[in-house]
Amino acid sequence: MAVPITPSQTQAYPLLSGIKTPEDLKKLSLSELELVAAECRKRVIELVSVNGGHFGSSLGVVELTVALHYVYDSPRDRIVWDVGHQAYVHKILTGRMAEMHTNRQYGGLAGFPKRNESPHDAFDTGHASTSISAAAGLAAARDLAGRDEKIVAVIGDGSMTGGMAFEAMNHLGDIKSDVLVVLNDNQMAISPSTGGLKNYLVNIPLNKTYNKLRKFVWDSISLLNNELGETAKTAVHRIEDGVKAAFTPGAFFEALGFRYFGPIDGHNIEQLVKALREMRSLPHPKLLHVITTKGKGFKPAEDNQSKWHASAGGFDIETGRNLKPSGNPTPPKYQEVFGEALVELALKDSTITAITAAMPSGTSLDLFQNAIPSRFYDVGIAEQHAVTFAAGMAAGGFKPVFAIYSTFLQRAYDQIIHDVALQNLHVVFAIDRAGLVGEDGPTHHGAFDLSFLHAVPNLVVMAPGDEQELRNMLYTALYEVKGPVAIRYPRGSGNGALLHKEFTPIAVGKGRVLREGSSLALLGIGTMVNRSLETAALLEPLGFDPMVCDMRFMKPLDKELLDTVASRCTHVAVIEENSTIGGLGSGVVDYLSRTHPGIRIEKFGLPDAFVTHGSMSELYHEIGLDARTLSERIGEFYRAP
Amino acid sequence: MAVPITPSQTQAYPLLSGIKTPEDLKKLSLSELELVAAECRKRVIELVSVNGGHFGSSLGVVELTVALHYVYDSPRDRIVWDVGHQAYVHKILTGRMAEMHTNRQYGGLAGFPKRNESPHDAFDTGHASTSISAAAGLAAARDLAGRDEKIVAVIGDGSMTGGMAFEAMNHLGDIKSDVLVVLNDNQMAISPSTGGLKNYLVNIPLNKTYNKLRKFVWDSISLLNNELGETAKTAVHRIEDGVKAAFTPGAFFEALGFRYFGPIDGHNIEQLVKALREMRSLPHPKLLHVITTKGKGFKPAEDNQSKWHASAGGFDIETGRNLKPSGNPTPPKYQEVFGEALVELALKDSTITAITAAMPSGTSLDLFQNAIPSRFYDVGIAEQHAVTFAAGMAAGGFKPVFAIYSTFLQRAYDQIIHDVALQNLHVVFAIDRAGLVGEDGPTHHGAFDLSFLHAVPNLVVMAPGDEQELRNMLYTALYEVKGPVAIRYPRGSGNGALLHKEFTPIAVGKGRVLREGSSLALLGIGTMVNRSLETAALLEPLGFDPMVCDMRFMKPLDKELLDTVASRCTHVAVIEENSTIGGLGSGVVDYLSRTHPGIRIEKFGLPDAFVTHGSMSELYHEIGLDARTLSERIGEFYRAP
Repeated sequence: MAVPITPSQTQAYPLLSGIKTPEDLKKLSLSELELVAAECRKRVIELVSVNGGHFGSSLGVVELTVALHYVYDSPRDRIVWDVGHQAYVHKILTGRMAEMHTNRQYGGLAGFPKRNESPHDAFDTGHASTSISAAAGLAAARDLAGRDEKIVAVIGDGSMTGGMAFEAMNHLGDIKSDVLVVLNDNQMAISPSTGGLKNYLVNIPLNKTYNKLRKFVWDSISLLNNELGETAKTAVHRIEDGVKAAFTPGAFFEALGFRYFGPIDGHNIEQLVKALREMRSLPHPKLLHVITTKGKGFKPAEDNQSKWHASAGGFDIETGRNLKPSGNPTPPKYQEVFGEALVELALKDSTITAITAAMPSGTSLDLFQNAIPSRFYDVGIAEQHAVTFAAGMAAGGFKPVFAIYSTFLQRAYDQIIHDVALQNLHVVFAIDRAGLVGEDGPTHHGAFDLSFLHAVPNLVVMAPGDEQELRNMLYTALYEVKGPVAIRYPRGSGNGALLHKEFTPIAVGKGRVLREGSSLALLGIGTMVNRSLETAALLEPLGFDPMVCDMRFMKPLDKELLDTVASRCTHVAVIEENSTIGGLGSGVVDYLSRTHPGIRIEKFGLPDAFVTHGSMSELYHEIGLDARTLSERIGEFYRAP
Repeated sequence: MAVPITPSQTQAYPLLSGIKTPEDLKKLSLSELELVAAECRKRVIELVSVNGGHFGSSLGVVELTVALHYVYDSPRDRIVWDVGHQAYVHKILTGRMAEMHTNRQYGGLAGFPKRNESPHDAFDTGHASTSISAAAGLAAARDLAGRDEKIVAVIGDGSMTGGMAFEAMNHLGDIKSDVLVVLNDNQMAISPSTGGLKNYLVNIPLNKTYNKLRKFVWDSISLLNNELGETAKTAVHRIEDGVKAAFTPGAFFEALGFRYFGPIDGHNIEQLVKALREMRSLPHPKLLHVITTKGKGFKPAEDNQSKWHASAGGFDIETGRNLKPSGNPTPPKYQEVFGEALVELALKDSTITAITAAMPSGTSLDLFQNAIPSRFYDVGIAEQHAVTFAAGMAAGGFKPVFAIYSTFLQRAYDQIIHDVALQNLHVVFAIDRAGLVGEDGPTHHGAFDLSFLHAVPNLVVMAPGDEQELRNMLYTALYEVKGPVAIRYPRGSGNGALLHKEFTPIAVGKGRVLREGSSLALLGIGTMVNRSLETAALLEPLGFDPMVCDMRFMKPLDKELLDTVASRCTHVAVIEENSTIGGLGSGVVDYLSRTHPGIRIEKFGLPDAFVTHGSMSELYHEIGLDARTLSERIGEFYRAP
């Protein structure tokens, strides 16, 4: 855990240590704000170097955050941080400096804004592109209540590619409510941004001929104006508005009903304060375009922005060099195994394509991007489009593999049903970060995918128990399944299973017995396969001889295997890293309770609640999914009357 | 059913009767195309006047469809129809003229494009805003395969407000693939379009001063150009490009990487053919802005476009007058009961707001819109934004009620979890069209909402068994629940339950016994409450004395009531109009099989498959949910060993 701010350390933060609320910030001069910014930057680097966390985005908005809290009156004014991983400086300036060392730790501050953590956190975020919608709602509420607080949404250019940001701007442009959207343009999501809009934004600051022309047209109109009579002048005034709109660099935003301002330098506090003061006085929807550098002030992060989007901590704060002892080599990550396997297969099969929604590095699809760029598609933060784009590719004769985090796939639920499953199209969903993700917490835990995919007709859903299974399941999804198919796998390292060079297809809908036994059966899937074996090992000394099965498939369910289980066991424990509602457990209970009435079944999985943030081991323990607690719970279940 | 085309009727359609494929269309002259359009229009009016169906949108694209099939080579070229309810003329021109009388009938043609119906249907649609994504996927597949077919997406201005349309354009502008987007701009979704973009589009054709100014700037540049030397000329050429972009009326689309053309008159075939021929030769993403009139050629529909968006049929094809015998008055629709109840409550409670995603009339929120316009929000076809906007309003101290069709709520699944439930915000989801919807078929059946909402923490989910229950549940949702809450109710008329003036709160999570009985219990929810009573009545003469319960809540489940059921009955049938996977039945099985092992439970609901289109009675019969079939199935269940 990062070091808390102690009295001796207070010297290191002479200004910050005096800022308990944004009110304290307002007492400072503009030049002192520069020093505050430097202290904030120092604190963020120090913090992440120890605890890990999101990094580049917070460093990029240091000056912007200081300026926002200098000009606006939080918590009365409401600042909504899109995604929210850039809110560390906001937390530092709003009374949480002393607790920042607990950031992302179990029981500590969250890595994202939380309304229940501070009144300064206006709206919880975590997923991209929600901030303008939330701000519009807060603004509509303010307008109805006759209040006059200001509402600000801070959104990156990456998040701006998400459709709901567009939906929200379109609506705000219609209701004309007073909201400031700060477009934090660093040309990056986690990886470099993509899309037509990005090219458009790039051209705004650079196009000098454009600016010259703009001046020429303005001058022409003035000239014209001077030569005209009163009636004509009125006409020209109307023309002026048209020209103004047409020659504003942000015509895109103006089209949606916003007034566009900028671009300005997002690391120049004086310019930011001046611009924000102007913004604050305008009563309608407006967008301030701010150019920032992700990782600003930490050279390694400026030089490699994707790599330094987030860090696991343990680096030197001068050089960025890894300080962690190398220790034993960890098994490869599921992501890497997936990315490498997909490239292997795609090199031999030119119908395979790969799609990501702005997550090439997180999903390891960057391996595909490098190996086969012509068949790689980064669609931006645009999950809905990604799925229907994949459906179109499948309808066009290709085999698209869409790699996406479990929680973000929630964004494309309708498209899975309506555009893929209904047409029974062969789209492969590689569902990454399925199950708990640790420190990122509830916005990022993949807690629901098995539940929300269960009822989707035509869909095959599987989860590998180890890395080799992932390879084989990917092969199976591509060559043994003809319709929509999903493979869910967790964040991080696997079990270190031996990786075979060959791919071996798995019979669709068939599980396997990993341990013969009787009376009690443990049925695991995905991460909980290995956990079931560990649990069985703990139950053995207590006199149990548990049968352990890797179910492999949630859908179709292996009914034959379940019949076998029911013929040997009186008690069945289903263990999965997904909500206990609607997942594998529900499927097993549904089948067994009808076909083998009287059999005792219990489900072990994520609770019907949002799981907090913390280390994986802390979280597993809290929800009773570590092997020790599982063995106790299963023992109780077996002994229950 | 509408009259099929018989030999005598062939005279009525001299040109259409000769068009079996678009190839036949291409043999005609431009002036003959006008006659084809007139015949298409006549056939659509005749058809809908008998069968019912979507109306205004197909009439609006008659000329556009004729021109598209004249210029493009379907099925080689791929035409994707956004939403797809405007594809009747497309179906007529692609070999389905003789079958159009079966449109939307059980076993007949679908009311939307279906790949399994015709090779001319490039991609299945039904929900809005998917066409550009699908077209992008088809185009990417074409490019990879080295083919050269053309890809066209036809999308209305209403659908253009959906975020995924923006996501798709942003991506296409990036990969620069050859796709034509035809923007069918009639200023309408089902109701008048809303949003900043709409105002922008309105201004394009109307802004004459803008066009004058445009000419002025062009002339100035020409003048300047003539006076300059060669080097300066090069510079000015570059400026020209800038001006061109700035002064294109479609700067919004140009910003995304599209070339914009138009607007042109969508009812002028000659102009359309000329423009489409030009489009066909351009190798990049482009948008053709076409102005059409919804309901064109049928005066009642032109005059009242919302009303005539779709029709139940049975009207005079000259006057639009209803020809159906008035018969017995039907009970009020659930929609109406909901809309009226919400207005009643909101007139007394100024914190209640109403939100729709472009469905004011379908949801009956038009009643609210008329009564309390200041608290009514139509956000456009923007379900994602709608939910997070509601969350923002709730965070701002209001009680938003978002009325939305079940299938469209799938669009906002992530927002329900991430923006509402995670913050435990008090947003009321009024889920309309839950269960089967009849003739619109699988894209519109609300088959999954109970399943996908089941695992969402903090959420209360209920369904009324009759109209009075709906009133009371709405009251309960607003005043007895403090967090997120959903009420699902079906399309169409209720049971005719007496409506009480007063609202009576319902205890959250409590069902009720409607018929005392023993041995066998029928547990219904929503529409299946009354069906359970009917089924019980059919089971009685067979010697059964079924207990019948209205469960009311899927979440929280009434465990006390289930314990009572289990104490009296050996067999439990759970009946719901939702997928049998993950809904109420799964909840009941989960609870009862664990607490009362040995009890026999069977689930009756929608199958794990997409249900086709047809009348409600035909569909209920097909899936075994009519009272007669239910009584037989339940009898079998009871007698099974």
